[in-house]
Amino acid sequence: MEVPVVRDILSANARVAAENRATFAAARVLVLNLMASPGAGKTSVILATAAALPKHIRPGVIEGDLASSIDTEVVAAHGIPAVQINTGGNCHLDAPMVRSALPSLPLDDLDLLFIENVGNLVCPAEFDLGAELAVVVASAPEGHDKPYKYPGMFASANVVLLNKCDLLQVFEFDVEYFRRGVAMVNPEAPMFQVSCRSGAGMEPWMEWLLEHMKRAG
Amino acid sequence: MEVPVVRDILSANARVAAENRATFAAARVLVLNLMASPGAGKTSVILATAAALPKHIRPGVIEGDLASSIDTEVVAAHGIPAVQINTGGNCHLDAPMVRSALPSLPLDDLDLLFIENVGNLVCPAEFDLGAELAVVVASAPEGHDKPYKYPGMFASANVVLLNKCDLLQVFEFDVEYFRRGVAMVNPEAPMFQVSCRSGAGMEPWMEWLLEHMKRAG
Repeated sequence: MEVPVVRDILSANARVAAENRATFAAARVLVLNLMASPGAGKTSVILATAAALPKHIRPGVIEGDLASSIDTEVVAAHGIPAVQINTGGNCHLDAPMVRSALPSLPLDDLDLLFIENVGNLVCPAEFDLGAELAVVVASAPEGHDKPYKYPGMFASANVVLLNKCDLLQVFEFDVEYFRRGVAMVNPEAPMFQVSCRSGAGMEPWMEWLLEHMKRAG
Repeated sequence: MEVPVVRDILSANARVAAENRATFAAARVLVLNLMASPGAGKTSVILATAAALPKHIRPGVIEGDLASSIDTEVVAAHGIPAVQINTGGNCHLDAPMVRSALPSLPLDDLDLLFIENVGNLVCPAEFDLGAELAVVVASAPEGHDKPYKYPGMFASANVVLLNKCDLLQVFEFDVEYFRRGVAMVNPEAPMFQVSCRSGAGMEPWMEWLLEHMKRAG
């Protein structure tokens, strides 16, 4: 009994995701879906990336959380247009939620839209939002075994950012073991080691992102 | 269309959870459901707690993961009876999964059973497994805003363990802000600050746990 209903929901989501994708293309905005465990540093990645953008590239943010507007307040305080989605208990964003947030953003004025998903290393990977790129953020304190334990999320990534890399040694984090785990489920996705706190490692990630923006036109 | 099906699943789960509860009571084993974000340190909490138990109390472990048997191998290497549940993509354990794991454990020989849920700060809170106590593990690197962003999980806790407390300063973690967030959604649950790595703070938590074991008889 469960499966057909779930399939209906996913196919309804896919229809709205396609509409979102068309909306983003018309507005010429590149959209990133940031997914990660709670506290891996999605908001920090957004702020550090936005700060490193060339001046002519204008970012915007959709924040997804079960509750609260903590992250939206932080982002807005940096002068970045931001809108909060509260899922009210739902464990992931879906395409209709994203669609409902779009009228609150100056989409035509934006070049790059970050969608910060609910902190969850499982469910968000199953819901297409209409974003161009899936950015999976892992972090040193979570441990190097995450790709082996949460293969679906890492398989869904277009790029993997390993954050809090200033603390790799503190957490005895084996980068090569982590890298092999990512490659096992996703041989295509590049991986960048960053520390949003220290700013280390941001350049290769920014180059990759700007190259994608160029290609997207 | 979605709601009745979800309700059916939850009520089927509740029936099996009640059966599990009766099984645990008959075997005189106290059962903990450990829930947390990925990488918060659930396995470390299990190992540190098991190591601190009086010799006559025999622990066992059920490990829940989407994939891999990494944690079960670690636990078994410590001489603790352990069984792995792979959910195959499912974002939480449910009562039937736990029931199916029980024949692999020497339940009559155990006094304390740890069930390590899938790393997820949302979905596991909605599924009764038949456990006596819900133990929510948070960790310093995740940040002090988690109770505000994931209220459902913290509301479900019988006790909150704040792990990796040797790193509170590194992460500029505001313990009082965190504590207020927990109390807002769950005024009853005690909170203990621990570091499984350094061993700091384990005593008050062990006292609380052993008191519960005494009460459970």
